[in-house]
Amino acid sequence: MEPSKTVGEYLVNRLYELSVRQVFGVPGDFALGFFDLLAHSRIQVVNTCDEQGAGFAADAYARLKGLGALCVTYCVGGLKVVNPVAQAYAEMSPVVVISGAPGIKERVKNPVLHHKVKDFDTQFRIFEQITVASTVLRDENGCQEIDRVLESALRFKRPVYIELPRDVVQLPAKLGDHPSVIPEEIDQESLREAVDEAVKMINAAEKPVIVAGIELHRFGLQDSLLRFVEKTGIPIATTLDGKSVISDRHPLCIGVYEGAMGFEDVRMYVESSDCLILLGAILSDVNLGGFTAHLDQTKSINATNEKVSIRHHSYDDVTLRQFIKGLIGSNIDKRKTREIPRRVPPIPFFPVQGQRLTVQRLFHRLNSGLEDNTLVIAEPGDALFGGADLFIHGATEFFSPAYYLSLGFAVPASLGAQLARPDLRPLVLVGDGAFQMTGMELSTIARFGLNPIIIVLNNRGYSTERPMMDGPFNDVLEWDYGKVTEVLGTGKAFEIETEDQLDNALISAREYKAGFCILNVRLDPNDSSPALRRLTESLGRRVKQQS
Amino acid sequence: MEPSKTVGEYLVNRLYELSVRQVFGVPGDFALGFFDLLAHSRIQVVNTCDEQGAGFAADAYARLKGLGALCVTYCVGGLKVVNPVAQAYAEMSPVVVISGAPGIKERVKNPVLHHKVKDFDTQFRIFEQITVASTVLRDENGCQEIDRVLESALRFKRPVYIELPRDVVQLPAKLGDHPSVIPEEIDQESLREAVDEAVKMINAAEKPVIVAGIELHRFGLQDSLLRFVEKTGIPIATTLDGKSVISDRHPLCIGVYEGAMGFEDVRMYVESSDCLILLGAILSDVNLGGFTAHLDQTKSINATNEKVSIRHHSYDDVTLRQFIKGLIGSNIDKRKTREIPRRVPPIPFFPVQGQRLTVQRLFHRLNSGLEDNTLVIAEPGDALFGGADLFIHGATEFFSPAYYLSLGFAVPASLGAQLARPDLRPLVLVGDGAFQMTGMELSTIARFGLNPIIIVLNNRGYSTERPMMDGPFNDVLEWDYGKVTEVLGTGKAFEIETEDQLDNALISAREYKAGFCILNVRLDPNDSSPALRRLTESLGRRVKQQS
Repeated sequence: MEPSKTVGEYLVNRLYELSVRQVFGVPGDFALGFFDLLAHSRIQVVNTCDEQGAGFAADAYARLKGLGALCVTYCVGGLKVVNPVAQAYAEMSPVVVISGAPGIKERVKNPVLHHKVKDFDTQFRIFEQITVASTVLRDENGCQEIDRVLESALRFKRPVYIELPRDVVQLPAKLGDHPSVIPEEIDQESLREAVDEAVKMINAAEKPVIVAGIELHRFGLQDSLLRFVEKTGIPIATTLDGKSVISDRHPLCIGVYEGAMGFEDVRMYVESSDCLILLGAILSDVNLGGFTAHLDQTKSINATNEKVSIRHHSYDDVTLRQFIKGLIGSNIDKRKTREIPRRVPPIPFFPVQGQRLTVQRLFHRLNSGLEDNTLVIAEPGDALFGGADLFIHGATEFFSPAYYLSLGFAVPASLGAQLARPDLRPLVLVGDGAFQMTGMELSTIARFGLNPIIIVLNNRGYSTERPMMDGPFNDVLEWDYGKVTEVLGTGKAFEIETEDQLDNALISAREYKAGFCILNVRLDPNDSSPALRRLTESLGRRVKQQS
Repeated sequence: MEPSKTVGEYLVNRLYELSVRQVFGVPGDFALGFFDLLAHSRIQVVNTCDEQGAGFAADAYARLKGLGALCVTYCVGGLKVVNPVAQAYAEMSPVVVISGAPGIKERVKNPVLHHKVKDFDTQFRIFEQITVASTVLRDENGCQEIDRVLESALRFKRPVYIELPRDVVQLPAKLGDHPSVIPEEIDQESLREAVDEAVKMINAAEKPVIVAGIELHRFGLQDSLLRFVEKTGIPIATTLDGKSVISDRHPLCIGVYEGAMGFEDVRMYVESSDCLILLGAILSDVNLGGFTAHLDQTKSINATNEKVSIRHHSYDDVTLRQFIKGLIGSNIDKRKTREIPRRVPPIPFFPVQGQRLTVQRLFHRLNSGLEDNTLVIAEPGDALFGGADLFIHGATEFFSPAYYLSLGFAVPASLGAQLARPDLRPLVLVGDGAFQMTGMELSTIARFGLNPIIIVLNNRGYSTERPMMDGPFNDVLEWDYGKVTEVLGTGKAFEIETEDQLDNALISAREYKAGFCILNVRLDPNDSSPALRRLTESLGRRVKQQS
């Protein structure tokens, strides 16, 4: 790491050391000093249209690089990223929030400074609720505080908050010892007992199955998972938010398990297993298909980053990482491959000339066009539910806020994602309602020379909600989405109503690499993916029961 | 008030009774039951593109109607309005935040429900930081809780938070006595002493002057102010955020006092006064021209909603309302009008054909075109600082978040403002940076048939920051702002670079009433209003000192 003369420089250097090459944000007077430092560093400043976009971009960046960062000004900037940072917390994405703030010396007499809400700590107290560690840097000891919160971000894969008063940026850095990486504690006895018990249960089972979840990705355990699968020959499903922790091409991968929402053969296979091995899976309502899933706890081994549970008892001091490593080192029998549900690779799409496009046929065409460098980013809603059936080539090439389900994520996420992984080209699936929230971040995407392909599922409103309870509040104005290229003076637009228009547009978009492409896909408002129909029926039943 | 069968109905009826006719928001599954109730009530649901827009619209609505409301879903919606609600707190705008939420019965076993962050109370704890009262409705006693928080909103003119779990909406309403309006307590002895002391000081003064602030507007004291001014003949300045608490046409109005930022004659007049009567003024850095103001406390009477201070002592139990009433009822001498600084009414604008437009000439032309039904909404930045010099016809016909200074306010504010006051036509002054944040709420403006005139001050970036510290982070992509009308399929666009183009556009916009007009006013990035130049010099000096 480069030597740091000031607290501000130390923060920049630490971020760089941790592979952060871009910081997203919007400047403001209390943050200008740090922006200036960044602008003169090896880190690129990516200023977005709105802070919300910076928040989502940093989240996507963190998912792909292991750490992301955003920089905003005090309150008027920071409080705009509360939702994206809450999402990062809920979905375990380590985002470092850096907020400029009034100088410590400026605060002494509690003056009425612009951007202040109740008192100088209002923003800090809010971020305490949605981060795993938070700090206000007050003096040159700030470097140690920086180390402490960054360590937490990496350890727990959750966002952290660093408030940087403007008179602290240039204070001399007082360095302690080298940034402390707290060694992971291992309770060897608990671990051995847990692994032994699990191995016995697995070896005794006729038909064990793995259900792999998002924590495997967040904690960098995808390679370990692969080794475990290949060592044991046990078939593997993923949760919805865990989709793409393993390639859909893997011969033991049976697809997404999501209760009544998923494919019936996967459901049957998982629910009839006599040994469920849940690895890093979050048992959320969405992952469980609106709680339609039936996972029998008496047949379950459930390992998460917090503990390992077997049937009805828990080993609190054993983490997912240790447990998988333990399983790999143990004597689990290798099984012969039995008959398992298989997701067939996409069959070729033959467009019917002039045929009105349906949601199902849209996903069929998208599926057949996926490439090795395609990164699918799906907005919550039908984009996600339909997207879950896509046959993804590589690991970590599909993501979505599939647990927190915040709208407005996908377009700014593609900004963060492509900067994190310039070798991939994002394919963004976004509903029209969500596009109207943050879609104009295409402006930033254009400024930074990126080229995602944006598929707007235009059905004139919130189609996920219509089946639950409909009303004029589910309608949005129909935009001429392609015309966004004229507002921005760049990009390529396609109007799509028929199968052949879609087919031609995707062929052209594939060839056009100079900038973003936007496909305005006009769908019937009453059409939706089969998965969505199943989910909304289940959730709608609850809305009506409860209200 | 109509009889209410359920807790949800009670909330709707209370809002209606308090003059709320529109509720802004975005639906979501946890809020659908209440949205459905609203859609079948006498209150109109205005669903915006993004929740942020709903927050700003509700704030503007509250400023003009005395109460505003927004309705969103749990976390993914609620946490998007944290910044607008924080602004409403800072600027004393009584916004009722209604958030749908998981049912109370659903929470019992702490399941992993979508939208949840840390625990079920995360959102509630965040809103505690930015509201004056907050509640989670848990049972049919919710009606009393509704009364309690609404009472606080009205009493303190600050936002409040009501979390409405979806299984509470349809619970039977259990009504107490009639909604309690807590009678204001008056400490008659303190009040008499304060008024007597103030009257003595005022009568003894040679050259008293009033500095009128935003609280006069928020607490509905503009008529009282007028009576006080006319009874005493004392000249009156306003703070920046208090602009338009009195008409600029009033013969005793000397304009905006804002330290070094304002007109020199106003500054001289105020600072040389031997008796400063500060009424409802917030002594913020911006109001004080970046603390360049010199208000001598030993010559001051300073009344706010919290207390009345005279010189260096305070009467803690006397409020602004009581104090002004007391002054009006007292024997203050009526003065002859002396020579005072006068803002001259705008002189006619004669466009020079082909002459490149400057900021100064832009404001000159806008000033000469103000009408009795013009409501000026100014975004922070040069729009605000330049706008401060406009000659506003009526009271409350100019506003801006002039203390909190959040960007992205003005366009969605015009949505809320015109629904609150359909007799006014908003003239929106917005920088290009701010337009890129929330300008697409023109979509909602179009859907609801409104017709503001939007002036985009297009100078390719954050021109307020350039003089403080410049860098590429202050640049934004230059949009073709007029083309937004093509994306939305409605509205009228004008391209402006010269004086005659501006003149013609404003004449056309005045005649075109069928929808919104947007003027893309291309300015020199280095040009700015004289007021902004003075302020940024002052603030920039501080940035450089501190960093």
